[in-house]
Amino acid sequence: MPTQVRDAYDTLADAYADFVRGKLEEDPLDRALLGVFAELVDGPVVELGCGPGRMAAHLHGLGVNVFGIDLSPRLIDIARHNHPQLRFEVGDMTALDLPDSSLGGVLSWYSIIHAPPAHLPGVLAEMHRILVPGGHLLLGFFEGPQVEPFDHKVVRAYRWPVDRLTGLGRQAGFAEVARVIRQSEAGGQRTGGALLMRKSS
Amino acid sequence: MPTQVRDAYDTLADAYADFVRGKLEEDPLDRALLGVFAELVDGPVVELGCGPGRMAAHLHGLGVNVFGIDLSPRLIDIARHNHPQLRFEVGDMTALDLPDSSLGGVLSWYSIIHAPPAHLPGVLAEMHRILVPGGHLLLGFFEGPQVEPFDHKVVRAYRWPVDRLTGLGRQAGFAEVARVIRQSEAGGQRTGGALLMRKSS
Repeated sequence: MPTQVRDAYDTLADAYADFVRGKLEEDPLDRALLGVFAELVDGPVVELGCGPGRMAAHLHGLGVNVFGIDLSPRLIDIARHNHPQLRFEVGDMTALDLPDSSLGGVLSWYSIIHAPPAHLPGVLAEMHRILVPGGHLLLGFFEGPQVEPFDHKVVRAYRWPVDRLTGLGRQAGFAEVARVIRQSEAGGQRTGGALLMRKSS
Repeated sequence: MPTQVRDAYDTLADAYADFVRGKLEEDPLDRALLGVFAELVDGPVVELGCGPGRMAAHLHGLGVNVFGIDLSPRLIDIARHNHPQLRFEVGDMTALDLPDSSLGGVLSWYSIIHAPPAHLPGVLAEMHRILVPGGHLLLGFFEGPQVEPFDHKVVRAYRWPVDRLTGLGRQAGFAEVARVIRQSEAGGQRTGGALLMRKSS
């Protein structure tokens, strides 16, 4: 599956980067959540599935020491080009080349959506491993009544009930801090979710 | 009930104002929500149940044209004293002396908690009446599995399931934009909720 996700994003990287460009500026709620995260984290932050780097760059602008990791080499090229002051590396969130307890925060913004559901406990365990005790995890995802795939434009993706994610988070050693659910705009089909958790054990 | 709430807050006004002083500065999530609200509203905003005026003052600092209303004359005195640049008036959110469709936003931060549950449809209807079409309502409240009173220090208050509030909001002509649920701190008993809605009909 990482190979499929990598290849799909590599193929569509430029179109994807165009598609997301400017979206954060139009979105007060997403910016507010990044602001909360920036204020809570203490120590370096990694964005997992950083794509063209716009979220990492926003955190950097808020004073966060942040770097980005993505499966797609082409997206990492774009991120480096767009944000030359930041560090971006190709990597796989299921097996990160990062030391234990080394980070104050992990941001994953609509990137766990591409993990096959059975892999999610392993992904959360890896996020937990790299965080310091008390470190914060901010997950963005599509919310829905059950774990099921939906028609993502790039590659297969899954929506999740927020309670399932918090349950898996708890099993991985996270405590829920807050959850946000946003309704889709008129006519939209997708409910957005954000889950802020803290490494508690 | 308004009389009881008014008298209870009048009696404890100074202690209450001391208790809430500085809390917003320590709370990135509440500040973030006010920031989102400030960015979305277009036109004047009223805070209903403004207490000593700290939330209204924060909105003012974000560039919002805001005034405050509270049942308690003593709290209104404190609000005027603390924030002389802003307008504060004694009033009752169940019967507001404000024209129809005259406001871009209504903020009610942990004030509907004191409304007897049977009065809440009337309160929401009143909020709906004073908002322009497309105007935004931001409600703060304590969340729980059912509508029930809890041990509020000042006067009887009720926690609400967020789905019940959104249901009543829908009946009043609001569409849900986003909801936020925050877990209490370790040892705390209270789950905080925030509900952002838009006047849709």
